[in-house]
Amino acid sequence: MYYPEPISKLIDSFTKLPGIGPKTAVRLAFFVINMNDDDVMNFANSLISAKRELTHCSVCGHITDQDPCAICSDTSRDNSVICVVQDPKDVIAMEKMREFRGKYHVLHGAISPMDGIGPEDINIPDLLNRLKDEEVEEIILATNPNIEGEATAMYISRLVKPSGIRTTRIAHGLPVGGDLEYADEVTLSKALEGRREV
Amino acid sequence: MYYPEPISKLIDSFTKLPGIGPKTAVRLAFFVINMNDDDVMNFANSLISAKRELTHCSVCGHITDQDPCAICSDTSRDNSVICVVQDPKDVIAMEKMREFRGKYHVLHGAISPMDGIGPEDINIPDLLNRLKDEEVEEIILATNPNIEGEATAMYISRLVKPSGIRTTRIAHGLPVGGDLEYADEVTLSKALEGRREV
Repeated sequence: MYYPEPISKLIDSFTKLPGIGPKTAVRLAFFVINMNDDDVMNFANSLISAKRELTHCSVCGHITDQDPCAICSDTSRDNSVICVVQDPKDVIAMEKMREFRGKYHVLHGAISPMDGIGPEDINIPDLLNRLKDEEVEEIILATNPNIEGEATAMYISRLVKPSGIRTTRIAHGLPVGGDLEYADEVTLSKALEGRREV
Repeated sequence: MYYPEPISKLIDSFTKLPGIGPKTAVRLAFFVINMNDDDVMNFANSLISAKRELTHCSVCGHITDQDPCAICSDTSRDNSVICVVQDPKDVIAMEKMREFRGKYHVLHGAISPMDGIGPEDINIPDLLNRLKDEEVEEIILATNPNIEGEATAMYISRLVKPSGIRTTRIAHGLPVGGDLEYADEVTLSKALEGRREV
């Protein structure tokens, strides 16, 4: 046993976090020992309260400390557009853009038959219920541009279209600041396919 | 405000750790939310106990949860050799080697006139007291091989030598697995200087 027990426990805890290997964990643990008392207490409390106080919004499924969440209860936002995303982090990414003023629906995953995840395992039934109750005019499918995300977007659009609600998919193409030379073929083909008049 | 408050506080706490930028902090915070309750509670408790229960050993200055530390109170270890290091992490590095069976003395720094750190600001007076009380035959100076470390080693050796105690400095040279081609000139010159008969 190289380390006194309180340190080795802290190192173990850090090692459980993603992307933190044994060496970084040791560095972080020793850093914590030299931090001031208040900062460490705040850190510990914020861990506990993040775990305890956060739930999923009963309307959209976004993580929140109040129910319904700040976005769902914001009356200045447009109720007629729902942006469907896979993950709470995607909501944050959209919000950072400061352009979208509609509401969200978080699926918490994507359809993936390979992993045994079907439509009823993610937040799709709740989405369909929302469509019945609210006066939604458009659904923007902003799932990830990979196989599972595409399958999920396709599945939702087929379910929703018969009801006459407009369903759109976010554009695929070259990322801004990207390099045509290094773009993969599928992205390039999608970018060409989605070309528009200038 | 993009994030619910409990998350943004947790993100802030993670951002205070070294080597963790805003994006990694977000990733870690969201990971914590999805961790199981016990792991999060353990994490929080280990933060608090690492901060509260750890002190410096009154003999050697190593971090410990008992005083004197496990190494100082280990009667099977050799009292006649003291290895002087700058940092508790250096003790761990030495212990991992499993070859040194003497005791340690942790300076918690090195002499650095540029930063206004003199001999009395680091744990040197305690070391001299130990030399008076204990029957020490050799002091191994294992401070870092940089300017401050060398200066500290030199300072201690000058203080200690008149008392007849053997003072040694760990060897400088090429690291094992290193490449002669890429070695810097000073290291190479030290390696040449320290050559031995084979």
